[in-house]
Amino acid sequence: MDIKHYMNEVGQRARNASRAMAKADTAAKNRALELIAAAIRREADALRAANQQDLEAARANGMEAAMLDRLTLSDKAIATMAEGLQQIASLADPIGEISNMKFRPTGIQVGQMRVPLGVIGIIYEARPNVTVDAAGLCIKSGNATILRGGSEAIHCNQALAKLVKEGLHGAGLPADAVQIVETTDRAAVGELITMPQYVDVIVPRGGKGLIERLMRESKVPMIKHLDGICHVYIDDKADIAKALRVAFNAKCHRYGTCNTMETLLVAREIAPRVLPELAKLYQEKEVELRGDEEARAILKGYPHLATATEEDWKTEYLAAILAVKIVPGIDEAITHINLYSSQHTDAIITEDYSRAMRFLREVDSASVMVNASTRFADGFEYGLGAEIGISNDKLHARGPVGLEGLTSLKYVVFGHGEVRV
Amino acid sequence: MDIKHYMNEVGQRARNASRAMAKADTAAKNRALELIAAAIRREADALRAANQQDLEAARANGMEAAMLDRLTLSDKAIATMAEGLQQIASLADPIGEISNMKFRPTGIQVGQMRVPLGVIGIIYEARPNVTVDAAGLCIKSGNATILRGGSEAIHCNQALAKLVKEGLHGAGLPADAVQIVETTDRAAVGELITMPQYVDVIVPRGGKGLIERLMRESKVPMIKHLDGICHVYIDDKADIAKALRVAFNAKCHRYGTCNTMETLLVAREIAPRVLPELAKLYQEKEVELRGDEEARAILKGYPHLATATEEDWKTEYLAAILAVKIVPGIDEAITHINLYSSQHTDAIITEDYSRAMRFLREVDSASVMVNASTRFADGFEYGLGAEIGISNDKLHARGPVGLEGLTSLKYVVFGHGEVRV
Repeated sequence: MDIKHYMNEVGQRARNASRAMAKADTAAKNRALELIAAAIRREADALRAANQQDLEAARANGMEAAMLDRLTLSDKAIATMAEGLQQIASLADPIGEISNMKFRPTGIQVGQMRVPLGVIGIIYEARPNVTVDAAGLCIKSGNATILRGGSEAIHCNQALAKLVKEGLHGAGLPADAVQIVETTDRAAVGELITMPQYVDVIVPRGGKGLIERLMRESKVPMIKHLDGICHVYIDDKADIAKALRVAFNAKCHRYGTCNTMETLLVAREIAPRVLPELAKLYQEKEVELRGDEEARAILKGYPHLATATEEDWKTEYLAAILAVKIVPGIDEAITHINLYSSQHTDAIITEDYSRAMRFLREVDSASVMVNASTRFADGFEYGLGAEIGISNDKLHARGPVGLEGLTSLKYVVFGHGEVRV
Repeated sequence: MDIKHYMNEVGQRARNASRAMAKADTAAKNRALELIAAAIRREADALRAANQQDLEAARANGMEAAMLDRLTLSDKAIATMAEGLQQIASLADPIGEISNMKFRPTGIQVGQMRVPLGVIGIIYEARPNVTVDAAGLCIKSGNATILRGGSEAIHCNQALAKLVKEGLHGAGLPADAVQIVETTDRAAVGELITMPQYVDVIVPRGGKGLIERLMRESKVPMIKHLDGICHVYIDDKADIAKALRVAFNAKCHRYGTCNTMETLLVAREIAPRVLPELAKLYQEKEVELRGDEEARAILKGYPHLATATEEDWKTEYLAAILAVKIVPGIDEAITHINLYSSQHTDAIITEDYSRAMRFLREVDSASVMVNASTRFADGFEYGLGAEIGISNDKLHARGPVGLEGLTSLKYVVFGHGEVRV
């Protein structure tokens, strides 16, 4: 197989399909989503069989348990995929929305229209549910998409792609609006990220290694997210009950997620009152606390106590480990966060109005919070209705990316024969 | 001079200054703009003297007339720079604006805050007025900026930079918020576009060659604009008076601008009535018309008639030349535009409602217009109050880029101790 030639054809087909998708009406897009959902329910047995093929091959190749788990398409996962599509169908159509049409002194009326980005390339690991979620979001936002999932899920992805195409066809939309890269050759990824003539944006969903490689090599802009080194700062004007609740939840609700707290900053004045109480909560979960000298003095006797080094402030543990640092106050907290945070999500716990406002303004992260758990940084929790990923970048979309992140605004001018003088 | 080391220091200073600029209040930013305007008026003689130095060197190096013209700082240009700064001061401050704070069922309130991008690198030709315009826009939008102007304007730019720093200092803002690259060594550009740790976005303002080179080499996202191959389509349901007025203005108001029409598409049915009338107008300006076969038949006898080839549909003339093509109707017009347009600005002239709506929706360009001259595609005409450039890209800013294009939105969460369950 000539990968370059194959990907070029995939790209051309996607570009052509994107024109039809851009002008597709809301009813047709929703109809496609409903048809795909129905086909997934109908073909549950066939999907499980295809998944079984992938799982057997993966086991034979010695895939580790956590990855096998993500690769597995359970009955529940199949039902969730179908429901997810129906949820996307129920969201308002962002495309074609015209806003802010204002008259100018020249007589023209100027505003903006929301339009699709065009063709979206999505590169992800062996998680079949991403195939359907991503396809659904791209259909609703009027984009064409090229999906490159982990090669270990190829049979399941092909089975899903067939159902997606059936749904598109049934709704009168081009089947090429969603294409799966049919080869497991890695060279296909290299082509996908270097065809700016066919691909408008790449959304990588995967580990840091993958994303760093794509950043080096991509000629197409990316909506990407690297680490989630999230902070909670407990101010000395904090309500202690809120501080305990939030700091416990931000660490222990789930360890492996990017919006989990990795470093806790505590104001010196309140530390002796709040840290021992918090330690009692963490102890139940056997959380390792890596403290600076002051924190260790306060936490003396905690059974899982360790010493924090410079490296800890830069580490995303994704585990039952928390770095703890005592700071004199909000100035040092903000300085520490702006230096070490991955600009994902950071929170302050305080009852002080001016400090809350300063934290919101001065912490340079995609999500900044007052008195809430960092775990809320999520497209569904924010009410976006869906999420294609979380962006730590500043240009275009920042934070959880929903349908709007897959669109852009063009200028629209209503005139009456006006000319410039 | 060690360029790498020098640019690294410039970058570090810019990053530090950007933190202070991000939290600067509106009054301080406006005060800085007013002080710089006053300093420019006060030092007009010194600025002219510095400009004279540049002009003499440029003449000695054989700079061509058009470039000498742009390099020249006239009394009027000095007054315009100062007025421009005062206009920027009078614009609303985009930074810190909080919008759409909505309560979620969990109890948290979520919305977005507009924040600066951080550090903006601007690379431009030997046009001293850009130094001041760009500095003004970056100050107002709370960004730090690194300015790399054409080396031929170095004396004038240094004189202007001194006044900018004086204004920043007088307003209590960091002088490093606006830095001029003090070396004319071209390697400095190579450094500037490969320091993503210090520079958040690059705005190139210059010729196609410069921008294409930057696209290949830059490791920093760009707000860029390449060609302006703009179209006007005269539909058969056009009001002829409007068609004549707009098609004449779009071509002849100014030849050298990116929003000038380069190709005129005319519906077959109306062509015999509209083209001869239009030719009378173009003849006065001695516009060369390069027609396809049908257009040439209608324009027979026009003194500046030539044959359009495939190459003409892809050419930005920036001159008194216009490509003319007869099309059967709106479908072919949209297809031609989406194939050949540089996605800058395209207009339809029609009285037909449904066709107007289709054109707006289906033409994939940064500005789409009905019954108005493409020359309106401009930040001032659109009411942005200022313009740092025009973007043909789809991600982030699209079309004329004003203050908002130099900002991004972060998520803000107001909580009351909420945790995820």
